Amino acid sequence: MSHVVVTDIARAEATVIDALGAHGVATVHEAQGRRGLVGAGLRPIQEGVRLAGSAVTALCWPGDNLMIHAAVEQCQAGDILVVTTVSPSSDGSFGELFATALQQRGVRGLVTTAGVRDVVDLRAMGFAVWSAAVNAQGTVKSTAGSVNVPIVVGGTVIAPGDVIVADDDGVVNVSRTQAAAVLEAADARVAKEAGAREAYLRGELSLDRNGLRETLSALGVEYLTQADHDRR
Amino acid sequence: MSHVVVTDIARAEATVIDALGAHGVATVHEAQGRRGLVGAGLRPIQEGVRLAGSAVTALCWPGDNLMIHAAVEQCQAGDILVVTTVSPSSDGSFGELFATALQQRGVRGLVTTAGVRDVVDLRAMGFAVWSAAVNAQGTVKSTAGSVNVPIVVGGTVIAPGDVIVADDDGVVNVSRTQAAAVLEAADARVAKEAGAREAYLRGELSLDRNGLRETLSALGVEYLTQADHDRR
Amino acid sequence: MSHVVVTDIARAEATVIDALGAHGVATVHEAQGRRGLVGAGLRPIQEGVRLAGSAVTALCWPGDNLMIHAAVEQCQAGDILVVTTVSPSSDGSFGELFATALQQRGVRGLVTTAGVRDVVDLRAMGFAVWSAAVNAQGTVKSTAGSVNVPIVVGGTVIAPGDVIVADDDGVVNVSRTQAAAVLEAADARVAKEAGAREAYLRGELSLDRNGLRETLSALGVEYLTQADHDRR
Amino acid sequence: MSHVVVTDIARAEATVIDALGAHGVATVHEAQGRRGLVGAGLRPIQEGVRLAGSAVTALCWPGDNLMIHAAVEQCQAGDILVVTTVSPSSDGSFGELFATALQQRGVRGLVTTAGVRDVVDLRAMGFAVWSAAVNAQGTVKSTAGSVNVPIVVGGTVIAPGDVIVADDDGVVNVSRTQAAAVLEAADARVAKEAGAREAYLRGELSLDRNGLRETLSALGVEYLTQADHDRR
Amino acid sequence: MSHVVVTDIARAEATVIDALGAHGVATVHEAQGRRGLVGAGLRPIQEGVRLAGSAVTALCWPGDNLMIHAAVEQCQAGDILVVTTVSPSSDGSFGELFATALQQRGVRGLVTTAGVRDVVDLRAMGFAVWSAAVNAQGTVKSTAGSVNVPIVVGGTVIAPGDVIVADDDGVVNVSRTQAAAVLEAADARVAKEAGAREAYLRGELSLDRNGLRETLSALGVEYLTQADHDRR
Amino acid sequence: MSHVVVTDIARAEATVIDALGAHGVATVHEAQGRRGLVGAGLRPIQEGVRLAGSAVTALCWPGDNLMIHAAVEQCQAGDILVVTTVSPSSDGSFGELFATALQQRGVRGLVTTAGVRDVVDLRAMGFAVWSAAVNAQGTVKSTAGSVNVPIVVGGTVIAPGDVIVADDDGVVNVSRTQAAAVLEAADARVAKEAGAREAYLRGELSLDRNGLRETLSALGVEYLTQADHDRR
Repeated sequence: MSHVVVTDIARAEATVIDALGAHGVATVHEAQGRRGLVGAGLRPIQEGVRLAGSAVTALCWPGDNLMIHAAVEQCQAGDILVVTTVSPSSDGSFGELFATALQQRGVRGLVTTAGVRDVVDLRAMGFAVWSAAVNAQGTVKSTAGSVNVPIVVGGTVIAPGDVIVADDDGVVNVSRTQAAAVLEAADARVAKEAGAREAYLRGELSLDRNGLRETLSALGVEYLTQADHDRR
Repeated sequence: MSHVVVTDIARAEATVIDALGAHGVATVHEAQGRRGLVGAGLRPIQEGVRLAGSAVTALCWPGDNLMIHAAVEQCQAGDILVVTTVSPSSDGSFGELFATALQQRGVRGLVTTAGVRDVVDLRAMGFAVWSAAVNAQGTVKSTAGSVNVPIVVGGTVIAPGDVIVADDDGVVNVSRTQAAAVLEAADARVAKEAGAREAYLRGELSLDRNGLRETLSALGVEYLTQADHDRR
Repeated sequence: MSHVVVTDIARAEATVIDALGAHGVATVHEAQGRRGLVGAGLRPIQEGVRLAGSAVTALCWPGDNLMIHAAVEQCQAGDILVVTTVSPSSDGSFGELFATALQQRGVRGLVTTAGVRDVVDLRAMGFAVWSAAVNAQGTVKSTAGSVNVPIVVGGTVIAPGDVIVADDDGVVNVSRTQAAAVLEAADARVAKEAGAREAYLRGELSLDRNGLRETLSALGVEYLTQADHDRR
Repeated sequence: MSHVVVTDIARAEATVIDALGAHGVATVHEAQGRRGLVGAGLRPIQEGVRLAGSAVTALCWPGDNLMIHAAVEQCQAGDILVVTTVSPSSDGSFGELFATALQQRGVRGLVTTAGVRDVVDLRAMGFAVWSAAVNAQGTVKSTAGSVNVPIVVGGTVIAPGDVIVADDDGVVNVSRTQAAAVLEAADARVAKEAGAREAYLRGELSLDRNGLRETLSALGVEYLTQADHDRR
Repeated sequence: MSHVVVTDIARAEATVIDALGAHGVATVHEAQGRRGLVGAGLRPIQEGVRLAGSAVTALCWPGDNLMIHAAVEQCQAGDILVVTTVSPSSDGSFGELFATALQQRGVRGLVTTAGVRDVVDLRAMGFAVWSAAVNAQGTVKSTAGSVNVPIVVGGTVIAPGDVIVADDDGVVNVSRTQAAAVLEAADARVAKEAGAREAYLRGELSLDRNGLRETLSALGVEYLTQADHDRR
Repeated sequence: MSHVVVTDIARAEATVIDALGAHGVATVHEAQGRRGLVGAGLRPIQEGVRLAGSAVTALCWPGDNLMIHAAVEQCQAGDILVVTTVSPSSDGSFGELFATALQQRGVRGLVTTAGVRDVVDLRAMGFAVWSAAVNAQGTVKSTAGSVNVPIVVGGTVIAPGDVIVADDDGVVNVSRTQAAAVLEAADARVAKEAGAREAYLRGELSLDRNGLRETLSALGVEYLTQADHDRR
């Protein structure tokens, strides 16, 4: 495998990125056809942060953070650093010093399938992180990897420059070239959900609103009293 | 398997339910002979909420929330919706719109072996949730299941109308017909623990209070100095 | 296996313990050569607590907390109780009554590979806990074990009297006899990191500061434009 | 929780049990409406054994096999011993000496959510086992439990006297009172599958045989050439 | 997400596929730069089978095998069916009837991130399977998915027509367009390993053969007697 | 952490080692007081092999097998190589070429918390392996570790020169200095078990042989008919 650092990736339009970030993960995931979720295993170390940014990707060897050092230089304001390892690793390959360097560059956060440490400092700095683990285990800087190549994270391919949306529900990836279309679909979904919300607040049932009584009936689901059910 | 929605389940007395809720999970679990815990895998999405309610149960197909739609209609004030799937699934089958509909009906919370999403909204609404996962992955509405049949959650059978007690320690189930007796036992346990707490605050040891020195001695546990231990 | 309670363990110097606690887990772990981490599986039940203390160890049978009762008597002010089981168990073998007794003695916290319960009370009391699980499941007091023998926790051997450092990053163990030397190394590391932090705040890159451009080059990592990369 | 040994459980008819055993797990599971599977976590220690028997149940404390000793006496020819623990445990609570005693009584096998050991001997003796683990860790005989009460194993309730069917696909439980009806449904299913098998051997497609082309079409699945797909 | 069945995928040359199959997983994985492994979680249900084939991919909803029915028609002699689900599922979505239909078409095996059942029959038929689980749990045929689109399996992207190599070490994917080049590299690797094997059989050490004494020395690894080590 | 290779470790007496190997894992584990088990996670890649040998230990970085290369030179006839990593790793750091080199030196087998590959070859060569995973993922040779220092494997400390006993039940460690005493205890246990086996073959119950009826009675376990039980 040749190892590269790609230096001039394309990014989506900033207004689209920010608008996707405002929608949040669940809405964006639905809007693009229930695709792009970056696995249920990545959890935020903070509560209540919702954001989006352009993916700068780093592919590291397990137990090694050399390529995170290389990735920092490729990050610019509005980016999110996305890190994974060639084989599973929960070592704490990222901490407060990296966050300091990234924050200095305007980077919005970190998404990693490995671990992070110094979480007290990270929370205090307001540097947002979604990770698979909190783990103080340190790493070395010995083995090559790549920066800004497509990586697979939690069953989803993330290409450099894709839009990463993250909040307390997790992380979703939007292909850079589809970002505008997904935003449009997300806007539409929000409008539709507003109508549903109002209806439910009035006491309408989703069974009726979505025509699900017919579905239940077609599937043979029967409504019974407890007495009738016990008699079977 | 025939699929049913049972429409008129019996519930325990409201004062008993609320009193069990006030005791909390650990006390109720002990009071009923260390039974009924709904597994260590279900965790609250919020901190510091303690409540109890009557179980309305929904048995869903993995990746499908059709029967949650059906269950909403069977819920009334004071209930807790309890959801599981036929085989393991952590998909986010429940979110803010469902919570809106349930809150409108006076439902107290959700217990689910699957995932939830929109957790920022759920926390903001004050809708309490204990779940196996936070996961934005959406579900379909295609496959039949049942509402208000007994379900197995985390090694415990939950019958519709049972009393669910939940707090930061987890979730415990109390059989509807035994709820009053369990409450009585829980009251007794609390009184007993108050005595122990006072004793410990005075410096008394549980070794003495519970007669455990005899147990240790009977089991052959020896007290040694470090020097004697090293000499062995 | 003979079962013992060792009654007069040696402890490290209090000022060294407290200074290690101030450094926190990640720094101490690095300072002693990336050793001593007590596994990524133990998580705090509270946020933002950082402390250190002398280990009093308890080795229990699964589902049994008899030896925790015996351990309480061996604990003194400044200690941290460290509990593990002979085979894996996540039962809630520790709760508010134990915490009351330990707090009365000046004990600083609990580290356990099993579960804890009454976490609302523990947080309210300010009794710090790092555990593998929150679990209301109760335990018995029937089977022998030992207190103040060396135990293996998460891949690390903890001897009674060792210094335990714990914070939101996890738990690290420092051998009692090496505590002063590790403190010295930690002080040095903090000084070095302060310089790095300042440099990063000025925009210097760790690539340059650590001489990693040479490493990348020696490993054959190539810098490419996207266009050149796509052409391959 | 009161602890009991129930001494005179009812069992299903031997001919029904044996006929269910001949059908195997997948067929019986389907025949009773996709219910009763005892979780994917229980695996056979041997290959190619398929059998059925009447459940004698033992509920043990973790790390303790006292109630297995009590259960042996309740077992008779044609039975299968089913063991679980109050909370999760993979200790090796069962080995060759228990198998010797059970085989002497005509017991057909063991199903356990805990561990087994002496597996070389068990295979050599031809004593069939489905377990969650192979583990040499020994257990004690100190804490009470029950024999022949309903237990929950892998999400399924097993009542004493139920029919257990086990093979390389896993373990399924059939309620004693429904065993004859399930057998009838299983016979029907086998006949239907024979027709399908013949059809497939002739090259017929399940798409056609099951009318699934209509399903795909109704769901909007499109058939495309690679060229048309790439063009989208 | 639009759902499609792509009907005319390209495949690699048969002689290349077979030659890659003869090399096996570990060699091919190394030959293509340690890429393409389909995760350590997929295990063979049989022992000693080594093969390769062209990937026909099926993307299913959890608990649903509708798209496997559609995929059968797209399979031809020499293919391997590769199945995954939109979110994790270990249900037994594949069994002996599917294997019968696929074997009739000359398909070489199945790779699935879900479960399989009827494993006794599958072994008897000689139909090779690598799966994440053996599980009798049945599935429905209700929800749309796709056939012959790229899927992500265990961290690797598998495109339809890629070469799948599988043996007791696991499963590796080779991009269709790189298959010939990877084969060449694999041939070279085998030749090189033959030399190493002969050397090791003569007693030569890999430390010497690979120049690793210098590496150890450069890294500061010291050779000590036990006495010298204890003295430190 | 300083990195060392210790070159002249002491080993136990060969006749004691072989006699412990003949007893097997479960017997040795019990004979030394239920200590020393190397975790339930290490499984054999072969069936029916039982052996013992002297531990040569290698502590590696995750994803790196440099120290296995160094360890080979320290191995001699009758040894078992025991490998672990600083943090969890299931990469396939060991394969057929290492086995060739070790077999040439008379080494009896491998115990590793990481993965192995080439398992078809390993089985064919008769080189015995107990590992946490089968995984083709290759490793690098870049980072220092140690050979013949004490390591922690699955909760047990293994010192170089300790006796490793392994069979289908798992792996157990016996301290070198206690090997003779443990052998004596194992001999005694085997004699005692022979008496129990004969008794059970005659139909005697362990309840009677071990005086467990008294235990059950003291614990309050009641014997009831089904009718009496249902009446409660």
